Amino acid sequence: MLLEKINSPEDIKKLNKTELQQLVDEARTALLGKISQHGGHNGPNLGVVEMTVALHYVFNSPVDKLIFDVSHQSYVHKMLTGRAEAFLKENHYDDVSGYTNPKESDHDLFTVGHTSTSLSLANGVAKARDLKEETSNVIAVIGDGSLSGGLAYEGLNNISEQGTNTIVIVNDNDQSIAENFGGIYKNLRGLRETKGQASDNFFKALGFHYEYLDEGNDLQALIELFTKVKDSTEPVVLHIHTIKGRGFSFAEENREKFHAGGPFSLETGEYISTGNQLETYQQLTTEFLLDKMAQDPTVVAVNAGVPMLLFNEEQRKQAGQQFVDVGIAEEQAATMLAGLAKNGAKPVWAVFSTFMQRSYDQISHDLALNHLPGTILVYGASASGMNDESHIGIFDIPFLSHIPNLVYLAPASKEEYLALLEWSIEQTEYPVAIRVPVGPVQAAQLLEKIDRQEVFKNQIIQKGEKIAIFGLGNLQSLAQEVAKQLENSYQVHPTVVNPRVISQLDTALLDDLAKTHQLVVTLEDGILEGGYGQTIASYFGNTTINVQNYGLDKAFHDRYDAKELFAANHLTVEAICQGISEKFKG
Amino acid sequence: MLLEKINSPEDIKKLNKTELQQLVDEARTALLGKISQHGGHNGPNLGVVEMTVALHYVFNSPVDKLIFDVSHQSYVHKMLTGRAEAFLKENHYDDVSGYTNPKESDHDLFTVGHTSTSLSLANGVAKARDLKEETSNVIAVIGDGSLSGGLAYEGLNNISEQGTNTIVIVNDNDQSIAENFGGIYKNLRGLRETKGQASDNFFKALGFHYEYLDEGNDLQALIELFTKVKDSTEPVVLHIHTIKGRGFSFAEENREKFHAGGPFSLETGEYISTGNQLETYQQLTTEFLLDKMAQDPTVVAVNAGVPMLLFNEEQRKQAGQQFVDVGIAEEQAATMLAGLAKNGAKPVWAVFSTFMQRSYDQISHDLALNHLPGTILVYGASASGMNDESHIGIFDIPFLSHIPNLVYLAPASKEEYLALLEWSIEQTEYPVAIRVPVGPVQAAQLLEKIDRQEVFKNQIIQKGEKIAIFGLGNLQSLAQEVAKQLENSYQVHPTVVNPRVISQLDTALLDDLAKTHQLVVTLEDGILEGGYGQTIASYFGNTTINVQNYGLDKAFHDRYDAKELFAANHLTVEAICQGISEKFKG
Repeated sequence: MLLEKINSPEDIKKLNKTELQQLVDEARTALLGKISQHGGHNGPNLGVVEMTVALHYVFNSPVDKLIFDVSHQSYVHKMLTGRAEAFLKENHYDDVSGYTNPKESDHDLFTVGHTSTSLSLANGVAKARDLKEETSNVIAVIGDGSLSGGLAYEGLNNISEQGTNTIVIVNDNDQSIAENFGGIYKNLRGLRETKGQASDNFFKALGFHYEYLDEGNDLQALIELFTKVKDSTEPVVLHIHTIKGRGFSFAEENREKFHAGGPFSLETGEYISTGNQLETYQQLTTEFLLDKMAQDPTVVAVNAGVPMLLFNEEQRKQAGQQFVDVGIAEEQAATMLAGLAKNGAKPVWAVFSTFMQRSYDQISHDLALNHLPGTILVYGASASGMNDESHIGIFDIPFLSHIPNLVYLAPASKEEYLALLEWSIEQTEYPVAIRVPVGPVQAAQLLEKIDRQEVFKNQIIQKGEKIAIFGLGNLQSLAQEVAKQLENSYQVHPTVVNPRVISQLDTALLDDLAKTHQLVVTLEDGILEGGYGQTIASYFGNTTINVQNYGLDKAFHDRYDAKELFAANHLTVEAICQGISEKFKG
Repeated sequence: MLLEKINSPEDIKKLNKTELQQLVDEARTALLGKISQHGGHNGPNLGVVEMTVALHYVFNSPVDKLIFDVSHQSYVHKMLTGRAEAFLKENHYDDVSGYTNPKESDHDLFTVGHTSTSLSLANGVAKARDLKEETSNVIAVIGDGSLSGGLAYEGLNNISEQGTNTIVIVNDNDQSIAENFGGIYKNLRGLRETKGQASDNFFKALGFHYEYLDEGNDLQALIELFTKVKDSTEPVVLHIHTIKGRGFSFAEENREKFHAGGPFSLETGEYISTGNQLETYQQLTTEFLLDKMAQDPTVVAVNAGVPMLLFNEEQRKQAGQQFVDVGIAEEQAATMLAGLAKNGAKPVWAVFSTFMQRSYDQISHDLALNHLPGTILVYGASASGMNDESHIGIFDIPFLSHIPNLVYLAPASKEEYLALLEWSIEQTEYPVAIRVPVGPVQAAQLLEKIDRQEVFKNQIIQKGEKIAIFGLGNLQSLAQEVAKQLENSYQVHPTVVNPRVISQLDTALLDDLAKTHQLVVTLEDGILEGGYGQTIASYFGNTTINVQNYGLDKAFHDRYDAKELFAANHLTVEAICQGISEKFKG
């Protein structure tokens, strides 16, 4: 096997044509072997095997700088830069992350997981090179999907303005054809159909030298193209047409399904079921929205980047004009929400916490400043969500809940979630974000409707004395467990509160508690600093009421075990009871 | 005078050609009359007088929806929609804001002050129209400068995809020529030079029907063009060439100077001096950076949107390749900083607090997650900065200081600021943001250099007992005044602390204070919620130490008086002393 002997790109440069093709085949086999057992970004990596081998054959990484957009397509790059073992040996699968990572290799420039950043990063790297009067190639690999993000356009503009060597590889696997997308996607399609000859070329319009390659999975054609533009002294766009999922028929045929996922069968192309058939908050949302849309033609679901978050292909068809996919463009989603709400529609945008932060200003300046009633469903806002350092969802409370006018809600059960969602869609006063619960669906006492006043009131789950425990959203169940444990072990009967609203305090309730309680405990599934609990600590700062805030430390935790992370931050029944009991000792 | 009789756009539709031209002339005279006395956005408004009259003559606002990007060019629109008095009568000048404002008129759809949002807003408004099966024209007016922001591109893509009526007016006053900008600006120049005929048309590439008008200050030509595309059933771009500053020779000649400013002489074109010749932190920064750049070719200043913030035209020439203007593209600036730092340059980005929030994710995901040593200078971060609700700078502590890895600093004096800036540029471990002090330059004990350890230590200005007052950055002087007053009136000798670092607590110092103090008071020039003081309240929440947090309430305050706002939030010597003394009564 050649692949095992590739310790660095230097080893690739010594191979002849036949060996290079053999390396491609081995890399694809290794890739399929790992992803079928381990899961990952399947389609994107299968499509760029030839391209990655050609890149490392022609260019001289790490002197030449390779930057992968989102970097979820960097698996083959990892294999070729000293990390083949992580794809060949099962017990080494977890040696590498699913994204580029400078801690793993000098060939990985950046930790990246969000979209559309590669061109601006490349622009900075190239500018530093120019300031130092060095020469090297700077190459950014960006997929057609990532071109929908505004930052990619800003990067193109600035690379063009800089005017020196930067090679932008547009990896166009025409994923967009399925959804018949306009704007840039109409242009890409026109260029593909004319083999790069169509008039009104988007990239030429922005001042780039442009080359088109239709056979983007042809190794020799790629080597030829890269050799031609190597050491170019001007900005270049290489528009390369590749086949997403190349070499695995099921993935070529069903590109959405095989974009990313868990383990699957190489024989049948079916994902291996985890046996988890429980009801999820995602399903609840889908059903609720489809039903709501059928009743009201002004309800409109907006998506940025992850269409399957709300609806599968069939459900998207069912939603019809009431579903808008804006591309991987969270800013557009948030600002479009403002326009929709202003003109009388009832927009709902579902987005992961980690991606929502890409639209902070749009949520603040367009939606909140204008008091417009759009609804944002914040998914994965929890330490129990995605756990890669580039994708964690534990920062949303500090960055979202302090935006004026915006109402941020944290339901703790199915009934509460659906009632708040219903309220949010129908009310016309506030921009509202809802922290969609994470984990198994929790039932609560039936709440069919929540009126305006109740939305802003904390809910007393259990009335007690001395100690009040505020369990926010996902951690309401932990609060109740702590209360039980306190009763059992310490014969204390604490008050348990479900705050429901994050973005403001229920001061009437707090003042009332102050009369009969000495300690308030807050639990939140997010970082402590700048969070919900600290606003309560501040409220009681000048009183004799003590406040203990429990939450996560401020860090980009990487590939962690959620249970361990909670434990390390004292977010367990035992640790919290311990903290509380110490207060009442002696 | 015709203008006085225009109460709504209906009145314009009754005018004949001669009268319409008279209205244009009267509007321009009124505009010059007000802005020369009152200040404002001069050039942008002078350039669109004819366009605005033509828009209201042809279209039917508010049924047809007019959306102005940034909306700083909406003065004439205001005159023509029932608000002429605010431009004709000095005692009514302040009746209207400098931006569109739904509270003023139904003809103003949104409160807007940030760039590049108009197309996404229009896209949402048009989509809602389509869902409701209504017909009306949706028109967005966007300047060439605003096209540099990625959100504008996302808007174009999505308008094209939607495929129904949306009329995008690109108001191209070729401001960009001066700086010879690439990317989209090369394309706009090519289109101007060929009267819209150049190949590789950016707008056509994105799927728009495109029309060019060279004489964008010719009223009849504008009326003809708008009439032609009115009720179009597909997305249209009207590329209209106007003269910035039109009708005032000094503004036509010096467009940068006359973009915006205070009162000026109509005779000489000189701004009227306010007599304020004091040293400013802006000047200090400019001098420091130019000096630093001359010594080190890898120091590079990055600008997004407001080039004059750091350097005037001459200074930009002096900086040469060490100055990069990325357009009005804060995301690009932040992510480019990451690329620059990664490849060994020392980048410094100066940005207003209100615009920095447009790059939250880029600061977090690109700069902070990657531990890259870029420096962000945060200007106008204070209630004493810009005071329009769309531009206030009091939210940066909650949204910036809780990003992991990022060091957010709040110097309180000239010496401290320059020492921290020097440290930040030269260190290689952290992304750093510095809250540039606002107001008159304060001198402090000489601090020539701050080493790494000192950066993360709070500075004890005065050691006392019982009470410790933390005055953050701009409010350090208030802390010292409070201390003096306490000594004089209450014979208490409090400790005064200059925290210096916002993003982490000096827990050693806090623990030490806890031994001899009963009350900690925090003062910050930003919103209280999610801010610095609340992290201290949380730290002491479980102790007998009391904490009083002083800061601003969470709201988009509009056109306020800073002194009044501080007073309303108890941020005065008297109110704070009162709050403290109440604690020690009895």
